[in-house]
Amino acid sequence: MNMNNARTATLLMHCPDRPGIVAAVTRFLAKQGANIIDLDQHVDRAEGVFFMRVKWELDGFALSAEGFGEPFEAAIARDFEATWQLHHDPRPIRMAVFVSKMPHCLYDLLSRWQSGEWRVDIPLVIGNHETLRPVAEQFGLPFHHVPITPETKAEQEAREIALLREHDVDLVVLARYMQVVSPQLIDAFPQRIINIHHSFLPAFAGAKPYHAAHARGVKIIGATSHYVTEDLDAGPIIEQDVARISHRDSVGELVRKGQDLEKLVLARGVWAHLQRQTLVYRNRTIVFS
Amino acid sequence: MNMNNARTATLLMHCPDRPGIVAAVTRFLAKQGANIIDLDQHVDRAEGVFFMRVKWELDGFALSAEGFGEPFEAAIARDFEATWQLHHDPRPIRMAVFVSKMPHCLYDLLSRWQSGEWRVDIPLVIGNHETLRPVAEQFGLPFHHVPITPETKAEQEAREIALLREHDVDLVVLARYMQVVSPQLIDAFPQRIINIHHSFLPAFAGAKPYHAAHARGVKIIGATSHYVTEDLDAGPIIEQDVARISHRDSVGELVRKGQDLEKLVLARGVWAHLQRQTLVYRNRTIVFS
Amino acid sequence: MNMNNARTATLLMHCPDRPGIVAAVTRFLAKQGANIIDLDQHVDRAEGVFFMRVKWELDGFALSAEGFGEPFEAAIARDFEATWQLHHDPRPIRMAVFVSKMPHCLYDLLSRWQSGEWRVDIPLVIGNHETLRPVAEQFGLPFHHVPITPETKAEQEAREIALLREHDVDLVVLARYMQVVSPQLIDAFPQRIINIHHSFLPAFAGAKPYHAAHARGVKIIGATSHYVTEDLDAGPIIEQDVARISHRDSVGELVRKGQDLEKLVLARGVWAHLQRQTLVYRNRTIVFS
Amino acid sequence: MNMNNARTATLLMHCPDRPGIVAAVTRFLAKQGANIIDLDQHVDRAEGVFFMRVKWELDGFALSAEGFGEPFEAAIARDFEATWQLHHDPRPIRMAVFVSKMPHCLYDLLSRWQSGEWRVDIPLVIGNHETLRPVAEQFGLPFHHVPITPETKAEQEAREIALLREHDVDLVVLARYMQVVSPQLIDAFPQRIINIHHSFLPAFAGAKPYHAAHARGVKIIGATSHYVTEDLDAGPIIEQDVARISHRDSVGELVRKGQDLEKLVLARGVWAHLQRQTLVYRNRTIVFS
Repeated sequence: MNMNNARTATLLMHCPDRPGIVAAVTRFLAKQGANIIDLDQHVDRAEGVFFMRVKWELDGFALSAEGFGEPFEAAIARDFEATWQLHHDPRPIRMAVFVSKMPHCLYDLLSRWQSGEWRVDIPLVIGNHETLRPVAEQFGLPFHHVPITPETKAEQEAREIALLREHDVDLVVLARYMQVVSPQLIDAFPQRIINIHHSFLPAFAGAKPYHAAHARGVKIIGATSHYVTEDLDAGPIIEQDVARISHRDSVGELVRKGQDLEKLVLARGVWAHLQRQTLVYRNRTIVFS
Repeated sequence: MNMNNARTATLLMHCPDRPGIVAAVTRFLAKQGANIIDLDQHVDRAEGVFFMRVKWELDGFALSAEGFGEPFEAAIARDFEATWQLHHDPRPIRMAVFVSKMPHCLYDLLSRWQSGEWRVDIPLVIGNHETLRPVAEQFGLPFHHVPITPETKAEQEAREIALLREHDVDLVVLARYMQVVSPQLIDAFPQRIINIHHSFLPAFAGAKPYHAAHARGVKIIGATSHYVTEDLDAGPIIEQDVARISHRDSVGELVRKGQDLEKLVLARGVWAHLQRQTLVYRNRTIVFS
Repeated sequence: MNMNNARTATLLMHCPDRPGIVAAVTRFLAKQGANIIDLDQHVDRAEGVFFMRVKWELDGFALSAEGFGEPFEAAIARDFEATWQLHHDPRPIRMAVFVSKMPHCLYDLLSRWQSGEWRVDIPLVIGNHETLRPVAEQFGLPFHHVPITPETKAEQEAREIALLREHDVDLVVLARYMQVVSPQLIDAFPQRIINIHHSFLPAFAGAKPYHAAHARGVKIIGATSHYVTEDLDAGPIIEQDVARISHRDSVGELVRKGQDLEKLVLARGVWAHLQRQTLVYRNRTIVFS
Repeated sequence: MNMNNARTATLLMHCPDRPGIVAAVTRFLAKQGANIIDLDQHVDRAEGVFFMRVKWELDGFALSAEGFGEPFEAAIARDFEATWQLHHDPRPIRMAVFVSKMPHCLYDLLSRWQSGEWRVDIPLVIGNHETLRPVAEQFGLPFHHVPITPETKAEQEAREIALLREHDVDLVVLARYMQVVSPQLIDAFPQRIINIHHSFLPAFAGAKPYHAAHARGVKIIGATSHYVTEDLDAGPIIEQDVARISHRDSVGELVRKGQDLEKLVLARGVWAHLQRQTLVYRNRTIVFS
């Protein structure tokens, strides 16, 4: 059990900016006995929007997860026209991993889970090829082979959705899944599907970004983790990182170096989500620190 | 005139952690008509200390710079045992630059000032050699030659302190000054002298860090800007950055590459100070974002 | 005088790959008395092309700059179908700087020149606005105001070319020039015009890249220095670098942080050119280390 | 099978610098039918030492691994007083991994091996605790528990050496092994033991570097992979990298962020060794690119 998470609550909210929001929210929380351990707020002055993340200890807090909404709406949310989410984290987030044939991100995610680095449950791994079944099973996880062809896509995604619901999945991680996910799956898990794209988006969206990067002669390659939306490789970015390359690097070397980036950037994106640090507003992700 | 600074106030404070501090402070400010535009707080749970930076618009704020202290002490500071500073920024910070013979940091600082990138006044440049007089004068700034020998050090530093006071200096920047500053000068400007050290501290403190880095065969060099204390190169770090090197780089190449680092890291450290983002606690610098 | 440059010659060459090229070239040079101090070669196996940079001491070398071509063609170049350039560096490269209204890159370049960090001559600065005349003149350099409108572009560029020829300019640096350079100027200085673009190309080519980066919600911004070709922002990349940003950064903050990147990336690109480390092949730049 | 390695030879050499070395070596190789695919040389002018790495295709090369030494000594090495190593790479390098209780580096190394990213054999894992036996065995590798106490150290290291010899091990990787290795083991595998230290050496050598980094208030943490010598944490550095931290990061957060660095920096160090890119000279590592 991770003490930092197990006994805290996290509130994420945004609303039109106006004076007094922080004072009102923190006063509300203080009255209910909250000891705030982290507060990060930000005003986008161009948009006129106020964003806040507050985290407090549940010890001594008067409200239950179910009992929070009504008084918070009455005291704060209605007045400030706030959109908000509360995370009491009573249990670990349940995460499904989708893969295709490349194993590096899968190894990385499963190692973080199995070693206890991440407080997360992984009820299943889904692959559109059988290739990575041995990796999942070596880590003691059930692997579901759900092959997808243009003809079977709708039907097979329906089967995936059923599997995810059956296993009570909160978060879907596309670990180099190499399939375009259709709206029905996205709508079933809005802002809860994280993808890793193997380029520094918006550069080199789409297929074969390392080939394109090599052809363009860039001196730096990147990777991007983002929430999946209906626009391919255009969803809200959570995390990006880059690595320096040189003219000596063939496409094969870019692929090899890029895999280390992909692992890191995907892991950091998932970690931010697990920590309830992310808040999507329009097509951008606020990542509170 | 930089609108972001000209009409805002910034409060930096720390105190023993306990519930309700954010609520109390933001409520106090809201009552006085403050529109908070930035609030960053942090609890060091190992030390049990609460840190906060709050910035608000002065339009509509009821208290003057002089009138703030008494009600804030009465309502907040005494009760929470808070140490605090208020910055109304009625005028630009007045910054003196100390140099020796190397010009790169001086060029960089003066360019940022002259171009208006920084809202700062530079009333004088002091050098322990005549070397950089032409640079200061080319930028239209008075240059004072204050040569220092072991015998004349106490006397010459007294002269420097007099010059700094005469010009109403708030901040002293040691731009590769290459002289150890004595306690009398440090005590006259506590936490208001920023130095750039040409290594990734605490590695390679002291003289000739690039030679030492080369001899040790490191693969990365660094630079560190920090507040000056009586312990050489051991004051609270504000900013650090690094650059990758290789076996191909001679000591001369390290010096050349390091100069770009030094300029950047010193400029970022000074910028954080100018923005009132820094708060020193014991030997560490909180740099609010 | 920079000893590293003053008494050396640098050969840059490429040719179809086949066995024996290094042996043949180094044997040729050894026979003429060259002491090689740096040799960097690279084979692009996908393209089947061999690239090499060799640098040697001129002390004891038998051939003059003029006398090199004939024996080298006879012994090496014809046989291997090599394209080559020899740089004897008998005098500093002569560099013109083109500017518009933003001063940060100009300050940076002129500081490197004036301080002697770079062994380069700057015979003139050309601006399409008067804005930066004081900066150039403060550094003691002639400033030519060549305003450009759609109607006068051809005529004014002809004037620029005349100025560049009159001053015997080798290299043109566009230091945030903000004008599209037309083919007549590019053709007059092929692979000798370096531009800084304020994004991580190919992302955000064209106008207002910081606004575009902010709108896309990227977590990292970049800058790119490249040789200018007729395709806007699509020429061979010399150098790129990036800086991490967050949701807290407004467009104005991106501009401010980006300026430091632009200075560094332009300076590194120009430095690589000055050191004769760059070799353009198709649309990519080999940057020898 | 990795074609790039399977059919190539790599020569690493250093000798006192003098004219004609590259010409002599490449001519020797060309005569024997070598097609050079990579040549990287470097002269340390301060030390007067020449370093070179040459890689060529074995197809058509006249000399066997055993037959290379005599003619190369006769034609080159004796004359130039060269120290050299030839790597024909007839079989994958055999690598042992030493661990203690922390699993992250072990997972990372085994994933790279099992996925085929690295062409390497891992005949055994040795732990001074039983903790990581399940990880090794899950990957199908034998795990040897060799507990070490001050009293049993000499005896147990002798057992380790016996195990390493029995399994024909070429390279020992200390993956957060947390034990000081004694001279007898180092002497048995000179320049063939790679350690990961969890700081940016030479800063924070010894125990608990993350605690020390936190106490010093650094803004960047690092990791260092190096060859093990008898001086603790002072051996020739192969690779380093860093990550930015802030005042918000507790020691626990530094540990968590540092683990990702450790994995990367150890993997890059081992990779450079596997690629025969490293050459130790005195206490520095040349890492050819």
